[in-house]
Amino acid sequence: MSKIKVGVLGATGAVGQRFVQMLQGHPWFEITALMASERSAGKRYVDACRWNLRGDMPEAVREMIIEECEPGPDCQIVFSALPSETAGEIEEEFAAAGYVVCSNARNHRYDDDVPLLIPEVNPEHLALIDIQKRNRGWSGYITTNPNCSTTHLVSALHPLHVRFGVKKVFVVTMQAISGAGYPGVSSMDILDNVIPYISGEEEKMEHKEPQKLLGVFDGVGVRYADIVVSAHCNRVPTRNGHLEAVSVEFEEKPTQEQIVQAWRDYRPLAQQLKLPSAPQPAIIYDERIDRPQPRLDRMAGTVPGMATVVGRLRPDPLLHYKFMALGHNTIRGAAGGSLLNAELLVAQGYLGQASALLAESAMIA
Amino acid sequence: MSKIKVGVLGATGAVGQRFVQMLQGHPWFEITALMASERSAGKRYVDACRWNLRGDMPEAVREMIIEECEPGPDCQIVFSALPSETAGEIEEEFAAAGYVVCSNARNHRYDDDVPLLIPEVNPEHLALIDIQKRNRGWSGYITTNPNCSTTHLVSALHPLHVRFGVKKVFVVTMQAISGAGYPGVSSMDILDNVIPYISGEEEKMEHKEPQKLLGVFDGVGVRYADIVVSAHCNRVPTRNGHLEAVSVEFEEKPTQEQIVQAWRDYRPLAQQLKLPSAPQPAIIYDERIDRPQPRLDRMAGTVPGMATVVGRLRPDPLLHYKFMALGHNTIRGAAGGSLLNAELLVAQGYLGQASALLAESAMIA
Amino acid sequence: MSKIKVGVLGATGAVGQRFVQMLQGHPWFEITALMASERSAGKRYVDACRWNLRGDMPEAVREMIIEECEPGPDCQIVFSALPSETAGEIEEEFAAAGYVVCSNARNHRYDDDVPLLIPEVNPEHLALIDIQKRNRGWSGYITTNPNCSTTHLVSALHPLHVRFGVKKVFVVTMQAISGAGYPGVSSMDILDNVIPYISGEEEKMEHKEPQKLLGVFDGVGVRYADIVVSAHCNRVPTRNGHLEAVSVEFEEKPTQEQIVQAWRDYRPLAQQLKLPSAPQPAIIYDERIDRPQPRLDRMAGTVPGMATVVGRLRPDPLLHYKFMALGHNTIRGAAGGSLLNAELLVAQGYLGQASALLAESAMIA
Amino acid sequence: MSKIKVGVLGATGAVGQRFVQMLQGHPWFEITALMASERSAGKRYVDACRWNLRGDMPEAVREMIIEECEPGPDCQIVFSALPSETAGEIEEEFAAAGYVVCSNARNHRYDDDVPLLIPEVNPEHLALIDIQKRNRGWSGYITTNPNCSTTHLVSALHPLHVRFGVKKVFVVTMQAISGAGYPGVSSMDILDNVIPYISGEEEKMEHKEPQKLLGVFDGVGVRYADIVVSAHCNRVPTRNGHLEAVSVEFEEKPTQEQIVQAWRDYRPLAQQLKLPSAPQPAIIYDERIDRPQPRLDRMAGTVPGMATVVGRLRPDPLLHYKFMALGHNTIRGAAGGSLLNAELLVAQGYLGQASALLAESAMIA
Repeated sequence: MSKIKVGVLGATGAVGQRFVQMLQGHPWFEITALMASERSAGKRYVDACRWNLRGDMPEAVREMIIEECEPGPDCQIVFSALPSETAGEIEEEFAAAGYVVCSNARNHRYDDDVPLLIPEVNPEHLALIDIQKRNRGWSGYITTNPNCSTTHLVSALHPLHVRFGVKKVFVVTMQAISGAGYPGVSSMDILDNVIPYISGEEEKMEHKEPQKLLGVFDGVGVRYADIVVSAHCNRVPTRNGHLEAVSVEFEEKPTQEQIVQAWRDYRPLAQQLKLPSAPQPAIIYDERIDRPQPRLDRMAGTVPGMATVVGRLRPDPLLHYKFMALGHNTIRGAAGGSLLNAELLVAQGYLGQASALLAESAMIA
Repeated sequence: MSKIKVGVLGATGAVGQRFVQMLQGHPWFEITALMASERSAGKRYVDACRWNLRGDMPEAVREMIIEECEPGPDCQIVFSALPSETAGEIEEEFAAAGYVVCSNARNHRYDDDVPLLIPEVNPEHLALIDIQKRNRGWSGYITTNPNCSTTHLVSALHPLHVRFGVKKVFVVTMQAISGAGYPGVSSMDILDNVIPYISGEEEKMEHKEPQKLLGVFDGVGVRYADIVVSAHCNRVPTRNGHLEAVSVEFEEKPTQEQIVQAWRDYRPLAQQLKLPSAPQPAIIYDERIDRPQPRLDRMAGTVPGMATVVGRLRPDPLLHYKFMALGHNTIRGAAGGSLLNAELLVAQGYLGQASALLAESAMIA
Repeated sequence: MSKIKVGVLGATGAVGQRFVQMLQGHPWFEITALMASERSAGKRYVDACRWNLRGDMPEAVREMIIEECEPGPDCQIVFSALPSETAGEIEEEFAAAGYVVCSNARNHRYDDDVPLLIPEVNPEHLALIDIQKRNRGWSGYITTNPNCSTTHLVSALHPLHVRFGVKKVFVVTMQAISGAGYPGVSSMDILDNVIPYISGEEEKMEHKEPQKLLGVFDGVGVRYADIVVSAHCNRVPTRNGHLEAVSVEFEEKPTQEQIVQAWRDYRPLAQQLKLPSAPQPAIIYDERIDRPQPRLDRMAGTVPGMATVVGRLRPDPLLHYKFMALGHNTIRGAAGGSLLNAELLVAQGYLGQASALLAESAMIA
Repeated sequence: MSKIKVGVLGATGAVGQRFVQMLQGHPWFEITALMASERSAGKRYVDACRWNLRGDMPEAVREMIIEECEPGPDCQIVFSALPSETAGEIEEEFAAAGYVVCSNARNHRYDDDVPLLIPEVNPEHLALIDIQKRNRGWSGYITTNPNCSTTHLVSALHPLHVRFGVKKVFVVTMQAISGAGYPGVSSMDILDNVIPYISGEEEKMEHKEPQKLLGVFDGVGVRYADIVVSAHCNRVPTRNGHLEAVSVEFEEKPTQEQIVQAWRDYRPLAQQLKLPSAPQPAIIYDERIDRPQPRLDRMAGTVPGMATVVGRLRPDPLLHYKFMALGHNTIRGAAGGSLLNAELLVAQGYLGQASALLAESAMIA
């Protein structure tokens, strides 16, 4: 069966490069379009893009000619790595034109009819897609993945929320420099330093994303979960991997063993479906007293950079328990999150007949 | 008037060197004895000590011969930079022999009759000294300063506690590598990394030190303050300066302005007495959105490394308010803390007649 | 006697801030004008400048209104921290208008009639000033200081060149991130990395600056010194302080002791004149086996950041000797270099009568 | 065909762990013995070893019981990661007892009858093995690999030496912290710093290793190459990858193109034999103006960490040309170097009949 054609919007930037990298050798997808700003359009990818990831730029894309960010290219899915300044409108144009947009931008995350999606957490929110298409009269649609620091917080909490009901969350993040893109954080600002401020980040974590992600689809829309979150967000001199100190209170206080068990038993839909980019397991619980650590654990698991690693579970004097959570910010927290969303769409038949067959073969394999 | 003779226990280590550095040119104190382990005793300081601080080893101490850590040297105060493995007993021997011991070690911090002291916070706890001497039949006595991360947390909270009554505190620390001494943290462990574990640190911050420091002396002992603290302690790749994300709930919820006012009005005894190492003010409130930062602010204020810098005050969704606190860990958080304690002892007459006069001249100046 | 009025061109940038910082409390100079690009002109300095140095922006300049970079302001000297894109022309306009321009920009460094100056090394090149004024019909004039890495290389070599005649130099630099300005080097590029390329740097060190600096003024112009230099320039993750590995061959091979002696005996004009920013001594020879080191030694000496520190002198299998040299790149290597040049101009009477008197009083003091 | 049994001496240390990691899934070798100091002997590997590499300790070795470092274990080859304090004698005991010792320690590198080996560079030095066995009356023998910084310098020079004759070399190294083992370099020493001294390193690079490696076996012993090397060795804050600035002079000066061609044409025996750990190609020439860089290029090539990456080739004002060389220090520069040596021994029949067959099948594959 031939692969599904995909494009990347904003292909020359930091997240765009990750999309390109992660799509190499993908069993279901092949890149047929790279799109970027006018300045890059018309150039070869190798000339327009300052490849920033370890390893060389993949051969398959070096000679591709970059196109402008407007509907037209021959592909079914577009992955959006656009900056929020331009993402909003461009993504709408693509969806209106019939494309499936899997976006890492924040612009549409909080729209009532757009799924904010972590495949392990809220696959039932895909039901918003039909509502979205109907509302907007589009033949295509938009799905989004959450912010990098929210992703791993909610991933770690989800199995606990299902069993014990999360009520209150304290979280302090120690976020890697790659989260700010390239050139992003000046070395003058971060060498031998911590910056206790990341614009807009605390708002996303406190009020917007966890509540929607853990909310319930009631047939019409998503009823936000009733969870109070307090977040302090900090930038630290690590390259990749957001580390988060989390304290949590539940509806019903579980034992410490029950929490560990909930993490260990966790086998959500994405893992059952054996989506190609779904790590097995989704959550890794590390018992060692000083783990997880960004450098040692950000690539842990079967699909490097896609798992959430938790550890240091212990009682909390104020709330019920505290623990550390860690995850890769530019893989699962950005491009990889969108990619897994696309895989879920395929597996759940949101790309038509072809998608159903691909999904099936994956489940059998 | 001649200066008060002081000695340093553990003079060759990281904290010992800070004592030596900070005592250079001190208006009240002069070093007359450097003491260290058997291995170093008998050697010149310049030969036994691998000077690790910026700038050269002070001329005045280079040729001093290191003595063993036992009572005998001609000095009135001994500053203890001993490791906890040996501090406990040695400090007792010195106190029994009539010395005033100002210790940075943790061994006696939690003894009922030993003051755990921040001069700005709980000078009235000095009353424990007479009880201690009576209890133990000593002619000298021991005072201690708290752990580096507790110091700045409690310093920031004290003016708020006095006015609004602190009830609950959630704190996540991002601590500098110098807090682990030398050689301390391996570069292999911390480059491009964060270590979410510091042995014993969370226990000190949660259960032991803040409650004693903010406790009330009732004539017999210290009644611990009824404050619940939840602490996550992390090591980050900064050289100096512990940064702390703090959320706090009060007996009575103040306005944000009242909190700022409390910090700005803060003028405790140490500052009123104009102790030589007391920064003016003790707490610096920085309004900038991305401050305090370790590299930029750890030396802020009139006595570099002695102030606590706070900022980013804002409402907290779970408790009342949240803010960031920063302070130098090896200056105020260690050697400087002990030194300021000694200055308070002098000013309050705990070193006899000479001390009273020195204090007076300082207040006039 | 009233101070000499000075202005700073490009006052809001990284080097401009250093000028502002170093001019605070200067015994001879006072800032009367801050100039920057159109975008900043008309704003208060505190509003237009993101202060990037440790410590707060000096009170004295906070409220000053930034002016445009054109002749007019009431001052005698202008220090130029302009980028090379604009420095060339603007500096000429100021010189033509009668100002004394002390520039850190590279534009005029290699002009035949413009002194490229290190006060310790080639004060006799000041004779070019009269030639320059005559050539160009200017009432003012331009002097320049060399590139940061050249400065400390040539400073270390000068006393050796005078005695033994430097013929060949091999140098590999390990340069700090601050050398690239702000925001300068992206943290994504330098964390856990070394970049073996700095645009234009090797050319300056190999062909242009050392030969002019060590050249001889023959009454008409500077005859470049006949020295062959091979330079590899690298960016390393240190904040401040350029470290250089140097191998050198002389006309006549001295003994190792003679080299040390040449450094120790070094007492050039700037030091004899006791210029306010001249460190005493200019060169610090450190015997320790693992020194100089950027973090420990970049601020060594009597005027922090102005000295050159050398060490690890030992025989070289290919040339005669090898050693390490270190110096602060944004102090002596940039703003401090220009400032010392200005002090030399004053002391040598290049600012008229006032200057002579100031110089004299300095020499007496 | 069954695999060859191998043991690791010093298995719990930094280099020992790399051996264990690199031997996982090796097509020819399987670990049957882990040996370490008395303190660890008798314990399970998982209990005695603080696994320090990214990824988990391999399952296959977790439960293995560590043995003491003395002959006895059932294996044919022992890889030695012992510290030089103990390596000398222990390696001799193993060789005397019939084991093939592939050592990373420096102790026997300079023995006249012990090969100091880079398979690409001097495979003909294996002839020393018979001489060694005869000399010492051993049934086994010792081979060694060079120091990490020498390895990549000589690897880069070898194809040039063969064609143009290397006469003079200037090299300045910027070496990663992992080169000092674990805990190795204190973070207090290296954060925001460079240390211009590594004990013993310059001696190895200048006088001992390059000359032996590039020397000629004349039937009796190795005639050292007549090359003069000047080395400055520095420690920089990078995790892995030694970067070296190299200037070189040849017997006959080639053109720049000829040098590039020599690197590109390079296809030595190890690559012809398709040894499992031999990268294809051995040397990667990167044309980009700012490469190689440690973080981006240390894992370049077909066998990550085994290639040498060169770049920035350009004329040198003093010698003929200069360039940068980079290689991984704990992979090719340590454990991987020994491992490739062992593969060469197998392929060349130095382990008997079995070895010949394995070699053959590899060449066919």
